[in-house]
Amino acid sequence: LDAEAAAAAAAAMDGKVKPLRSLGDLESLAVRVAGIQGTASPTVASPAVVVCAADHGIARDGVSAYPQEVTGLMLQGFAAGTAAVGVLTAQAGARLVVADLGVVEPPQIAPGQNEVLDRRVRPGTASSLTGEAMTRAEAEQAVAHGIGLAHLLVDDGADLVGLGEMGIGNTTTASALTAALLERDPARVTGPGTGVSGDALAAKVAAVDAILRRHEDARGTWDVLARMGGLEVAALAGVILGCAERRVPVLLDGFITTAAALVAWRLAPVSVDAMIAATLSPEPGHAVQLEALGLEPVLRLSMRLGEGSGASLAIPVVRSAVAVLAEMGSFADLGLAEASPHA
Amino acid sequence: LDAEAAAAAAAAMDGKVKPLRSLGDLESLAVRVAGIQGTASPTVASPAVVVCAADHGIARDGVSAYPQEVTGLMLQGFAAGTAAVGVLTAQAGARLVVADLGVVEPPQIAPGQNEVLDRRVRPGTASSLTGEAMTRAEAEQAVAHGIGLAHLLVDDGADLVGLGEMGIGNTTTASALTAALLERDPARVTGPGTGVSGDALAAKVAAVDAILRRHEDARGTWDVLARMGGLEVAALAGVILGCAERRVPVLLDGFITTAAALVAWRLAPVSVDAMIAATLSPEPGHAVQLEALGLEPVLRLSMRLGEGSGASLAIPVVRSAVAVLAEMGSFADLGLAEASPHA
Repeated sequence: LDAEAAAAAAAAMDGKVKPLRSLGDLESLAVRVAGIQGTASPTVASPAVVVCAADHGIARDGVSAYPQEVTGLMLQGFAAGTAAVGVLTAQAGARLVVADLGVVEPPQIAPGQNEVLDRRVRPGTASSLTGEAMTRAEAEQAVAHGIGLAHLLVDDGADLVGLGEMGIGNTTTASALTAALLERDPARVTGPGTGVSGDALAAKVAAVDAILRRHEDARGTWDVLARMGGLEVAALAGVILGCAERRVPVLLDGFITTAAALVAWRLAPVSVDAMIAATLSPEPGHAVQLEALGLEPVLRLSMRLGEGSGASLAIPVVRSAVAVLAEMGSFADLGLAEASPHA
Repeated sequence: LDAEAAAAAAAAMDGKVKPLRSLGDLESLAVRVAGIQGTASPTVASPAVVVCAADHGIARDGVSAYPQEVTGLMLQGFAAGTAAVGVLTAQAGARLVVADLGVVEPPQIAPGQNEVLDRRVRPGTASSLTGEAMTRAEAEQAVAHGIGLAHLLVDDGADLVGLGEMGIGNTTTASALTAALLERDPARVTGPGTGVSGDALAAKVAAVDAILRRHEDARGTWDVLARMGGLEVAALAGVILGCAERRVPVLLDGFITTAAALVAWRLAPVSVDAMIAATLSPEPGHAVQLEALGLEPVLRLSMRLGEGSGASLAIPVVRSAVAVLAEMGSFADLGLAEASPHA
């Protein structure tokens, strides 16, 4: 974070015609974006949401309410613009970019539909229950794809990047990563995901526990990432790293994108400075992740869909915060010196 | 609420291509708007924010951090478009309508600036500490102006109306109204407002307590409203009543607009069905009010500015909820019968 830019933005916000700090989180958001972008006059003129999709070998072990083929079907919905994230990015005035990091059944994209960028590393990971999800080289390739996607977006002018994901089974992968990286009890960070409950939830917790035991000799973040997966999580970590390097704020979405944030944070601790948490998911591990990262969510809204739906909804709030900083009148404009009669 | 329209919207939302209820509050918002508008295909195509402003005699009794003249100065900022609510309504794509219900110093509006509608009932209320804030006839006139403003907006096509207010001293008035209407301890529903603390806050609580004792023989909502004020609170209650009658959802803002909501609710209990709470203010009485009305806020954000700033920020969320209902693909579109493999 650029402390000087943030301090200048905070001083400008204090000088606006309003009681001191009365815009609450909107003020801290504007100051944070100023610190990330390294300017007292930050912008959110060209927001984008990048959705990374891939399949998980673990999905064939009964941890999800949905079969693995749904990942590819959902990608077709992204291409058609009919998925939630398509509607919500359009509402937010944000560009939507979708990348396939390795779904088992690549989507059939009709002419005229939105492009799905081919960043396929392999057709889904192997099951982390019985072996390594991917090789170290594959994990590095997926992260590199993410960094490349960030650079692509930023080179095209993106000044705020939201994250989204799709991958049947990826809450199980995210729970395993979160438990491993934060050394937490699997039961604490494993939840219903797309909708398992009762015995199925108990089986999911047992699966996460088994993954952790299977890979208890994993050493370091890269090893944990390669062994547990997933391809889209690795790519999203790369998107964060690439945006942080370019001083572009990153809006996390729900539990899976925040697992990617944990990976990015462990690979490059300074990358947390570029992160903004969009929403708080009811998935129990999400609050644990955000606390570890020291982030407060902008929104709550009890959303558990992922896809980038929460990140998309937070874009207008961040844009509004920056607009207040840029456009709202100040006491100085009125020829008054003081921000408050009590200042 | 139109239960049939709401049920149809809920069924349509359940049929969207996503895990059941995974869009959380966004789903309940879309269903609520459907119920209010009385259609399974609700719209937020033409949102508006109406700001009512007036002065309060109580402001001359030392309850506010700001002098009374600031109300008129702020109205000039609304006219110039440089106030927070001007920036935020522009961001939200919402029309901003400002009405003067009785500020002490009417604003000087320059040519080319936004209009401030003249709905002046009297040049500020009298102090409720020493007498009645206004007469019953004046309270009725202010409410009628609010109803008229609602009809004006709805006739112009508004399909979502946010509330805003400006009036130095109006958190004291709102605290007195809330304590009186909900029979609560003044200390429980009186807070810092624009920024009083310590001895000044204790004096504010004592003032609210004194207002309640001065008017302990008040009988009924109209009597409480006339004796305690304020003109803009009465008008905002009217806006709610007018919107509810026309089946247009109303976004409450912070503590003062929700005091108006309490008045509307007491005058016409069914009007609560048209209300949506935009934000939760840190002002301690706001949670008390929302609980009494049975409303959950869409946003939190720790904002205490008022003006309609919170209502403006919630507009894109409500619009997005309605867009998901209208535009997102369904399982039926894919030729699938079931909303969920577990359904």
